[in-house]
Amino acid sequence: MFYHDKKLQYQVRVETPNPAFAKLLQQAIGGIEGEIRVCLQYLFQAWGSRGPAKYRDMLLDTGTEEISHIEMLSTAVALNLEGATNELKDKVAGENPIVSSILGGMDPRHVLSSGLAAMAVDSNGVPFNGSWVVGSGNIAADMYANVMAESTGRVLATRLWELTDDAGMKDMLAFLIARDTMHQNQWLAVIEDLGGVGSNLPIPNTFPMSDQVREFEYAFVSTNIEQPPAPDARWASGPSIDGKGEFKYVYASPLGQEPVLGPPDVKGYAQEQQMTGGLDKGILENIKDTILP
Amino acid sequence: MFYHDKKLQYQVRVETPNPAFAKLLQQAIGGIEGEIRVCLQYLFQAWGSRGPAKYRDMLLDTGTEEISHIEMLSTAVALNLEGATNELKDKVAGENPIVSSILGGMDPRHVLSSGLAAMAVDSNGVPFNGSWVVGSGNIAADMYANVMAESTGRVLATRLWELTDDAGMKDMLAFLIARDTMHQNQWLAVIEDLGGVGSNLPIPNTFPMSDQVREFEYAFVSTNIEQPPAPDARWASGPSIDGKGEFKYVYASPLGQEPVLGPPDVKGYAQEQQMTGGLDKGILENIKDTILP
Amino acid sequence: MFYHDKKLQYQVRVETPNPAFAKLLQQAIGGIEGEIRVCLQYLFQAWGSRGPAKYRDMLLDTGTEEISHIEMLSTAVALNLEGATNELKDKVAGENPIVSSILGGMDPRHVLSSGLAAMAVDSNGVPFNGSWVVGSGNIAADMYANVMAESTGRVLATRLWELTDDAGMKDMLAFLIARDTMHQNQWLAVIEDLGGVGSNLPIPNTFPMSDQVREFEYAFVSTNIEQPPAPDARWASGPSIDGKGEFKYVYASPLGQEPVLGPPDVKGYAQEQQMTGGLDKGILENIKDTILP
Amino acid sequence: MFYHDKKLQYQVRVETPNPAFAKLLQQAIGGIEGEIRVCLQYLFQAWGSRGPAKYRDMLLDTGTEEISHIEMLSTAVALNLEGATNELKDKVAGENPIVSSILGGMDPRHVLSSGLAAMAVDSNGVPFNGSWVVGSGNIAADMYANVMAESTGRVLATRLWELTDDAGMKDMLAFLIARDTMHQNQWLAVIEDLGGVGSNLPIPNTFPMSDQVREFEYAFVSTNIEQPPAPDARWASGPSIDGKGEFKYVYASPLGQEPVLGPPDVKGYAQEQQMTGGLDKGILENIKDTILP
Amino acid sequence: MFYHDKKLQYQVRVETPNPAFAKLLQQAIGGIEGEIRVCLQYLFQAWGSRGPAKYRDMLLDTGTEEISHIEMLSTAVALNLEGATNELKDKVAGENPIVSSILGGMDPRHVLSSGLAAMAVDSNGVPFNGSWVVGSGNIAADMYANVMAESTGRVLATRLWELTDDAGMKDMLAFLIARDTMHQNQWLAVIEDLGGVGSNLPIPNTFPMSDQVREFEYAFVSTNIEQPPAPDARWASGPSIDGKGEFKYVYASPLGQEPVLGPPDVKGYAQEQQMTGGLDKGILENIKDTILP
Amino acid sequence: MFYHDKKLQYQVRVETPNPAFAKLLQQAIGGIEGEIRVCLQYLFQAWGSRGPAKYRDMLLDTGTEEISHIEMLSTAVALNLEGATNELKDKVAGENPIVSSILGGMDPRHVLSSGLAAMAVDSNGVPFNGSWVVGSGNIAADMYANVMAESTGRVLATRLWELTDDAGMKDMLAFLIARDTMHQNQWLAVIEDLGGVGSNLPIPNTFPMSDQVREFEYAFVSTNIEQPPAPDARWASGPSIDGKGEFKYVYASPLGQEPVLGPPDVKGYAQEQQMTGGLDKGILENIKDTILP
Repeated sequence: MFYHDKKLQYQVRVETPNPAFAKLLQQAIGGIEGEIRVCLQYLFQAWGSRGPAKYRDMLLDTGTEEISHIEMLSTAVALNLEGATNELKDKVAGENPIVSSILGGMDPRHVLSSGLAAMAVDSNGVPFNGSWVVGSGNIAADMYANVMAESTGRVLATRLWELTDDAGMKDMLAFLIARDTMHQNQWLAVIEDLGGVGSNLPIPNTFPMSDQVREFEYAFVSTNIEQPPAPDARWASGPSIDGKGEFKYVYASPLGQEPVLGPPDVKGYAQEQQMTGGLDKGILENIKDTILP
Repeated sequence: MFYHDKKLQYQVRVETPNPAFAKLLQQAIGGIEGEIRVCLQYLFQAWGSRGPAKYRDMLLDTGTEEISHIEMLSTAVALNLEGATNELKDKVAGENPIVSSILGGMDPRHVLSSGLAAMAVDSNGVPFNGSWVVGSGNIAADMYANVMAESTGRVLATRLWELTDDAGMKDMLAFLIARDTMHQNQWLAVIEDLGGVGSNLPIPNTFPMSDQVREFEYAFVSTNIEQPPAPDARWASGPSIDGKGEFKYVYASPLGQEPVLGPPDVKGYAQEQQMTGGLDKGILENIKDTILP
Repeated sequence: MFYHDKKLQYQVRVETPNPAFAKLLQQAIGGIEGEIRVCLQYLFQAWGSRGPAKYRDMLLDTGTEEISHIEMLSTAVALNLEGATNELKDKVAGENPIVSSILGGMDPRHVLSSGLAAMAVDSNGVPFNGSWVVGSGNIAADMYANVMAESTGRVLATRLWELTDDAGMKDMLAFLIARDTMHQNQWLAVIEDLGGVGSNLPIPNTFPMSDQVREFEYAFVSTNIEQPPAPDARWASGPSIDGKGEFKYVYASPLGQEPVLGPPDVKGYAQEQQMTGGLDKGILENIKDTILP
Repeated sequence: MFYHDKKLQYQVRVETPNPAFAKLLQQAIGGIEGEIRVCLQYLFQAWGSRGPAKYRDMLLDTGTEEISHIEMLSTAVALNLEGATNELKDKVAGENPIVSSILGGMDPRHVLSSGLAAMAVDSNGVPFNGSWVVGSGNIAADMYANVMAESTGRVLATRLWELTDDAGMKDMLAFLIARDTMHQNQWLAVIEDLGGVGSNLPIPNTFPMSDQVREFEYAFVSTNIEQPPAPDARWASGPSIDGKGEFKYVYASPLGQEPVLGPPDVKGYAQEQQMTGGLDKGILENIKDTILP
Repeated sequence: MFYHDKKLQYQVRVETPNPAFAKLLQQAIGGIEGEIRVCLQYLFQAWGSRGPAKYRDMLLDTGTEEISHIEMLSTAVALNLEGATNELKDKVAGENPIVSSILGGMDPRHVLSSGLAAMAVDSNGVPFNGSWVVGSGNIAADMYANVMAESTGRVLATRLWELTDDAGMKDMLAFLIARDTMHQNQWLAVIEDLGGVGSNLPIPNTFPMSDQVREFEYAFVSTNIEQPPAPDARWASGPSIDGKGEFKYVYASPLGQEPVLGPPDVKGYAQEQQMTGGLDKGILENIKDTILP
Repeated sequence: MFYHDKKLQYQVRVETPNPAFAKLLQQAIGGIEGEIRVCLQYLFQAWGSRGPAKYRDMLLDTGTEEISHIEMLSTAVALNLEGATNELKDKVAGENPIVSSILGGMDPRHVLSSGLAAMAVDSNGVPFNGSWVVGSGNIAADMYANVMAESTGRVLATRLWELTDDAGMKDMLAFLIARDTMHQNQWLAVIEDLGGVGSNLPIPNTFPMSDQVREFEYAFVSTNIEQPPAPDARWASGPSIDGKGEFKYVYASPLGQEPVLGPPDVKGYAQEQQMTGGLDKGILENIKDTILP
């Protein structure tokens, strides 16, 4: 069950409202790298957690923390939008064509749709999409999904930090960047808690290795028709990361057949020519009489 | 530049066509764990690759291989759908209410829209979405995105393997499961090639650690109001995974203020009561006369 | 800032797991009538709230409660899915065509993608969409958006209640149905708190009535070409609901012109025939030589 | 059945074409507050209307009127885009970096995709989405959905009115604002026609009140951990809006259990460690031999 | 401006309600091949029509007709759903696992969300998407978009006709199939009206042929690495369809360079190793000191 | 199976990087007129091809070529973005309000999300959508879908050509424009290869003409209530394009009934008033006691 108080997890100050920066911040709210995604992802993973309870508890702790991050960023968007309506009006209505186009730096829906507040969308106004909430039921797969989310999330936060000179905004982002540092370490710590990379790979580690086609389980397949020599790289030779095989480097060549599908289903309403080869209209008519009612 | 031949990378056989399994296979084609996603993800990462060329070359090799996987799965869907139209007709038109509902096991669009062929959708018919194609420009973040994709992808493939008794389908999936084993190892091998986990974390490793709010960079924040003791877990104490700090366990408490936003913009057409406190209609009227034209 | 404990707001019991009911419950989680929508809607309205603070506080209270509802429903989905993998396997792999199609009653992604847990999708597997999160900055418009959400939400919950015989599920839904009763009353109570329907309509009440085209502000426009007589209905005559006018009943007829757009832009690459009327190829060639470089 | 003539419902004039305003107008065409949504919403409600015929007839009248509104706005977009290609060319191609960025004020697809015409998208180019078309089969729920659509729609129209100085555009919007006034009153008049708010709440009013968990049907639940006193507000005490109960104010506390899910399904390919607690690799191997084939 | 009456364009009868067929019919309403798409497509093309007025008038006529088709199909869905709630209840609640799964043949939202009425979604419940509404401003491109829509639409309608034995439904579909016959002919008649295929190709015909890279304008490029001989096919040799060139058959070979992108932007927060080659941690540290603040 | 080399199909040069043009180019990558769509469309048509093998081979050739086009355009986007981060920083952070708004000309996600590389989105940042990938199983319908894709694609490419003065970009686009010329001719050549327009229309040509409602198969239906005379146009009289009938021009009038749906399902939780006419509360109560448990 969930509770709240009325304060923010960390202070949010905006010295100079900037509607263009409000637009950029939306990426950290409703974008695929954003906080709604990690919030729902950790909570759904918690709510579906099967196995040792400590993982569920941890996911619940951090999923709840992320709600507070959405709150901080939404507050930051609203503060950056203070006064934006008048500014937009001047721009759109203005006679000066250069000035009139300044609208572009804003999300117009911040004025038109939300009345100077954050929305559940990304920096282009594309809505948050529930498909981004990954919880597979396999804890190792989920931890890598979480590392990925916190990695792209921290990259995003550093870029936002770079794009503002507002001291308040830099401070808020510096806090969020620190939290992403922890969370990257945290999810990888779960992998260690589970015995480390080797004992978890390949994910899922419950599928019997003997049931996969073993010849290709550690082969790097080069699809380059020029067949260049193997590079001097970790993935081209030597022991595999999971310690269960040796990398090898092979050139792609087909092992399968040329696929042949059956003719179109008579009731599926393809063209006659697909069923007969399309060569002879007279034959087509005969066939049609025969095969079609 | 890209080329093809007419054969498949690995053989695709279907002993007993099963439209219900065709529907399930769509998850591996157009789902978020599917092959269109990894194909475009690796290719877009290659096309945007900046830095040492060997990473670009490798991404191009594997991105191209994934096109062949989409081709294999699409062939498998078409073969599983042979004869499905007549079967569906019997079901929908049948008088027997039990029989008439068998439609549910299929994707109806396999008959209605594609004429017994694969589509760019998932197992519920939800279209592939380009937002899933992740390429951040930061190679470590991208590698974890790729590990995640291959981990959820292999989990999916093993579940599909479990859900069929068709020897041909099991064989095809056993090949794809092996390739996912390699690709999980491959992307983690890139992390090693880049110096290992420690020298890559936190991602991005180019943001100065000193610019983040250091007090929180390795703190696990428990948001549980019951404030339970720290668990005996890898993420609650001890050295951080990146070797740059010590985990600590803290209880959530607000560091920020209660947020206060300005009043609604007069031109933003909020309700009068929002601007005046909503208490006194007479006052409202006066204000309206004053502040609104 | 947000907190949690480890218990549920209300008990969630499933006596007989039923994967088909798990699919239906997804509508109440990730559907447009569902709990993710109301949760984010109330929280975003709170975070963007401008005007008297008591409305913000209330929105925060109820938005937080809704997280607990997502948690209850997600738990219910997971409990209904216990054991579903084996069941699905039997169905897909079975030789009996009737049995093999039972898959249809489930969301296949509950097995393939989530490992028997809830997802952020609706009952057809269509992902939650952030566009549903409405917060306009106008409190009266937002309250009606909230009444609408709780009304369609309660209709959904009663239909789910009707479709199950499981005593645990009926009990959980009976609780959620009660909460929707409160929330419908609550949002309409805000309208009263703001002075009642009359003083809030038309929304926004800050736009000067004199600036709209007054002739049509209370006219019901019948677009029926048969021009039937006005019905004996509340909206066809008598005082308007806001008490600021009288309903009238009029027949549609155009007040505007036939629209005439300019010719295509020469650089916009329309067809030649659009620019010349398409009548005379010789003329077209001449024009092309002239107007195109 | 539907008919048309060639004139517009109300005149549409643009004195000074403004591509930036064309972009803003798209919100009123293809946005969630826009006319495609209300048009399809009222028509689908009409086509699915069950019960007294007068509601169906009314919905058909107004749904048809809304097509004419889409037509007016689409005409306005096209007129605002006259001449925009050349302007855009100058901007993108220009050497002056300030000038070259003016593109931002436009929707680039107005030039690239539609050839200076309206599209079925919102002001950020996000496509119209059919999920917004609400028709629940419960007439009271639908009426509140319609009030909400007309309230956010009128708020949008007033903001657009504010953002232009073009007399033609202001006139067209003043007409649409008047129609939204009527439609807000109209949908609430249906509630009165149905007996008023009290006899319709809670929606649906056909679910027996005795079947909901009565203790919580009029309780405001404060989730604030600081447990502030009840506010002096309409929703915290006094009779409920539907006249069927008394509001009360309570503090959140869990009534449910800590949820416990079963272990992962053996065939669902979770990690071994989820099934065994992850503590002992030797044990894991033994278990694997036993539980996995 | 638009009008309606209360009758249907063509009779809609359902002899035996079938919720499974209601689900299939949704493809013809809200699917990409469906009537909402063609309706909006023709109307938006009309509203943006530039050039001779007769094309606009025709598009308006047919776009309006398509509203009546949505109406017919929505009526058919509602009639097929009569009585479906009780049926669904039996299925979901039933103890018999075979019976309980019959849900799959229906769209669950027909009961849960719409109350036995049509929705703006396809046969899998995926919402209509405004991106499908194509109007390019080039009339020839638009006519081929319309031919395509009516061709996939008629294929869909014939498949639906095949899947029902209900005489009423077959009759309604036989009418819609006839209308699609007309509309295919109609859009191709516009091409003839514009001077025929030859004078319209390549579309747009206003781009000077001399400005494209002429060597490749009629070359079929085989990307098959086995370089098979040219097939005996219309597209491999002989005059081009537009009469402006000769088809030739060539084998793919790269004409471009190996792309080389610049190094990552220092402020874009890529990994250090991308900027330095990743070889030498000591060097990395030095560089970091230098290039990063 | 698929292969690649490391060069581009045609040279890609950017003389002056222009982030605004990078944004426009995204339409040709991830837009509905773009190269991901045609690539997947031709490949999925190939993989599902039933009937003579030569069509499959051809689709595979051209589908593979389109991957190379995505690669060229993605390279062009990356080259146009060189140096964009610093530029953006200046703009957002700048104090000068005019300068600070220049952001609008760019896709902010090119800096925030992709690190100066292409993404699978359109020019407004809306993600590619798999629903655009059309393959109906009917070859004639598919060929018109392909003509449509290449027609809107070539219109787009010419508009992009018009909007740049960069010699490298103009050269690349001139190549792509030539390829679109070929592909338009190619798909229409398939129609000829199949016997020409007449023998393929109406699509599908396997549905017996006698089974459609013949009275309306060549009738242009005018829905204009003013009933104007038939225009002098190819589609209003004379032989139909398929040579199987005569066009006629008729005025719309309803042939169907006024639809009457049954009352709401008692278990579907409509409002009482819908079931009783809403006239008499006493009666309602009685009915409720009777029909509702």
